[in-house]
Amino acid sequence: MSGASPGSPAALRQINQAHVLSAVRRSEALRLGEIAETTGLSRPTIASALDELHDAGWVDFLDEHPKGRSGLGRPARLVRFRAEAGYVVGIDIGAHRTGVVVADLNGTPVATLKRGTAGAYDRHQLLGAVRATVHDALAQSGVGRNAVMSVAVGSPGIIHPTESMVVQAPSLPGWASLNLAKELRRSFRCPVQVENDVNLAVLGECWRGAAKSARTVVFVLWGERVGAGIYIDGQLHRGASGAAGELGYLSVLDPSGKEVLVDERGLGPFERAVGAGAIVAMGKQASRHRGDSKSELARPGEELDAARVFSAAAAGDRAARQVVDTVIAHLARGLAPLLLVLDPDLLIIGGGVSRAGKAVLDALRLQVHRLTLVGTPLELSALGDDAVAIGALRLALTDVEQRVLPSL
Amino acid sequence: MSGASPGSPAALRQINQAHVLSAVRRSEALRLGEIAETTGLSRPTIASALDELHDAGWVDFLDEHPKGRSGLGRPARLVRFRAEAGYVVGIDIGAHRTGVVVADLNGTPVATLKRGTAGAYDRHQLLGAVRATVHDALAQSGVGRNAVMSVAVGSPGIIHPTESMVVQAPSLPGWASLNLAKELRRSFRCPVQVENDVNLAVLGECWRGAAKSARTVVFVLWGERVGAGIYIDGQLHRGASGAAGELGYLSVLDPSGKEVLVDERGLGPFERAVGAGAIVAMGKQASRHRGDSKSELARPGEELDAARVFSAAAAGDRAARQVVDTVIAHLARGLAPLLLVLDPDLLIIGGGVSRAGKAVLDALRLQVHRLTLVGTPLELSALGDDAVAIGALRLALTDVEQRVLPSL
Repeated sequence: MSGASPGSPAALRQINQAHVLSAVRRSEALRLGEIAETTGLSRPTIASALDELHDAGWVDFLDEHPKGRSGLGRPARLVRFRAEAGYVVGIDIGAHRTGVVVADLNGTPVATLKRGTAGAYDRHQLLGAVRATVHDALAQSGVGRNAVMSVAVGSPGIIHPTESMVVQAPSLPGWASLNLAKELRRSFRCPVQVENDVNLAVLGECWRGAAKSARTVVFVLWGERVGAGIYIDGQLHRGASGAAGELGYLSVLDPSGKEVLVDERGLGPFERAVGAGAIVAMGKQASRHRGDSKSELARPGEELDAARVFSAAAAGDRAARQVVDTVIAHLARGLAPLLLVLDPDLLIIGGGVSRAGKAVLDALRLQVHRLTLVGTPLELSALGDDAVAIGALRLALTDVEQRVLPSL
Repeated sequence: MSGASPGSPAALRQINQAHVLSAVRRSEALRLGEIAETTGLSRPTIASALDELHDAGWVDFLDEHPKGRSGLGRPARLVRFRAEAGYVVGIDIGAHRTGVVVADLNGTPVATLKRGTAGAYDRHQLLGAVRATVHDALAQSGVGRNAVMSVAVGSPGIIHPTESMVVQAPSLPGWASLNLAKELRRSFRCPVQVENDVNLAVLGECWRGAAKSARTVVFVLWGERVGAGIYIDGQLHRGASGAAGELGYLSVLDPSGKEVLVDERGLGPFERAVGAGAIVAMGKQASRHRGDSKSELARPGEELDAARVFSAAAAGDRAARQVVDTVIAHLARGLAPLLLVLDPDLLIIGGGVSRAGKAVLDALRLQVHRLTLVGTPLELSALGDDAVAIGALRLALTDVEQRVLPSL
C-alpha cells in the first residue's frame, strides 16, 4: 500500500499498522501484551494501530473469558485477523482438467472444484469451461465476486514475463498468443495474474509442501510434458523470456544431436523420451515384442496408461520393469544437467508420472547421483495434483499483501 | 557500517553521509549545489555530512578557479572522493598463472602483475608463489599492506559457500580441502574472501565487461576445463554446495550415459570432449589420420595447441576445420541445457579457447540456437584473461562499501 510520503506521520502510522497486523496474522488470536512483545512497539502505539486496523476491517476484537475467571474484572481483549475480509482465487488450467480453489486471506480453502476439460477443442471452449468452473466454485463457497481481491492462474506454456501473455502452449489448442490475463479480467473486478503452471507448483511446494525451508528448489513436472519450476532465494526464476526450466526440449539422449526440437505435437526431445506418452508407447512395444499374453501390459480390452506400466513393473512383470528402468535412466540423463547448473537444495518430482511413487524415486535418485557431483536430495511432490492451484493462491495472496493490506 | 541504533540521530547522520558519499563517488568532483540536486538533502545537512566525511578521510575539498574568473570572489568548493584512502587486492590463482591487481577505492588498478605458476607442484609451492606475486605487486604499486582494506581471491574448484574452503579443485595439485582464506589471511590485516574463479569472471563482466546492463548472465569458461559462473538479478548464484555451474561434468555426448564422471585428471565428460586438451588430441589424430604433411596441424618440431587448431581452420586447413566443427557442435550440446534451464539475458564465452574469436562464436551461436527455444544472445568475454582478477576487485570493493564506508 502506498500514498503517504516517506517519513510523514501517515507513513509511520502505516508502518506501525503493518507491524501489528503481521504479528496478529501469525497467530489465531493475540492479546495486546503479546503484540507488544513481538513487535517491540509501545502499548499506546499498538492500541491506536489496532483501532485503525479495526476501522479498516482487518481485525476483530474478541473478549477472552479464561476458565474459572469469567466475571472477575474486565476480560482481556483478544485480537484476530479477519481472514474473511477478502478472498483469493487460484486457477489451474491443464490440458485435461481445470482446478479452482477459493481461499480466505489466511490461504485456507473455502471451496475446491476440479472439472475435466479435455473435451474443449479450442480456446473459446476452454475459456468458457474455466469461467464456468470459477462460477460454480464461487457459488459453492458462498463468496461474492466483489469479495475476491486477487486471482492467479497457472497455465502450461511459456508466459511472457511482463505481459501475462501466453507465448507458446503446445499442449492446449489455440492457446498460443492468448492474452489470458485480459480474458479473465473480464470476469473479475480485481487483478488477475497469469503464471506458468510449473512455476506455481514450485511456489506451492515452498509454501505448503515438500520444500518449506529450502532456499533453492526445483520442481520437475513429469507427465505428458516435462518442465521445471525454479525458485531461488525466495523468488521464482522465470528467465529473460519466461522460458527458464523448459526441460522438455533437452536433447541429451540422441548421439547425433540432430533430432527435431519441437515435433508436430509440440513436444521436445526429452518429453518425447520420458513423458507419459513415451512410457505407454514403450510398454505397448515391449508387450508386442515379447508376445507374452500373460504380461500385465497386454491386458486385453484395456487401454494401457503410464500408471499401469509402473504398477506392472512393481508387481514383477519383466517387460514392464525393463521399460521403467529405461525411462528412469533416461529421466536421470535430463535431470543431471539441471542439477549441475543450479545445485539446488532440493529437487521435487511431481506431475502425473510421479504418482508411481517411492520405489521409482529411489531408483531415480541412484541414477541421478551417478551423473552429478553433490548428492542433491530428491523428493516427491507433497501437494500432488493441487500444487499448481495452491501456488496460485500463494501468488494471489502476495498480491493482496503488497497492494491491499497495510504493508511496509 | 553499523553501530548506531536505528532511528537515532547518529544513524540519521550516517544515512546522510552515505547519500552524500554515494553522490560524490559517482563523479570526479562535485560542487555542493550539485550534491543537493542529486540527493535532495538541504545544503546545511550536506555541509555537515561533508565535514564528517572529510574528518574520516573519505573526501577532499578542492578550490575551483573557473577560467577567466580567477581571483574574483571566493572560489566554489569542489568535493572529490579520496579513492586513495584505501586499496583492494584481487587475486586470480590458476593452474598455469597467478594474476594480482591492486586497485584504489574507485577500482582503478595501480599495479597489475601476472606470473607463470605452472612449475608449482604442491600447495605450499603454489601458495608461496601467490604470496610472492602479491608482495611484488604491492611493492610495484607503492601501496603499503596496512592500506589494503579487502582482498578477494579466485580459485578453480568448488568453494564451500560459507567457509571459503576449497572443497574440490582437480586442476591444482593438493588444493582440495585447503582453507585458502585462512592461509592468505596470514598475509593481510583485512578480510580475505575466496570465490570460485568463474563466479568472479561473471562478476567482472557484469561490472566492467560485456554484461553491464544484463539481469541474468552466464559466463562459460572454455579452456582446459569448462565451467559456468551464474549471475541472477544482481547476485552470484553459487548453489547449495557452491557447485552451481559445474558444466564440465555434463554427460550429453555419450549415448550410453555410462562414461566416468571424474577421470584420473579430475576432468568431467564434457570438458574431456570440448576442453583444450580434447581439441589438441583431435587435431593430432586428424593430422595423423590424413597423413597430410602440408597440414598446418602437422608443423614439425612444434607442439600443437588449441590456438593453432583454430588458426589452421581459419586459414582453410580442412582437417583443422573438421575438428573445429566437431568441437563447436559438441560445445553447443552442453550449452543448450544451460540455456534451457536458465534462459539468461546473455551468455558470455570466455577462457583460453574463446580467443579463437568471432568466427567460432558465430558458428557456435548457430548450433546453440538450433537446440534451444529463445535465441539467447552470445558474446565473447570483453575482459579476457583479466575477468577473474577484475571480478575479485569488485567483490573486495563491495566488502569495503558494506563494511568500511558509510553505507545505508
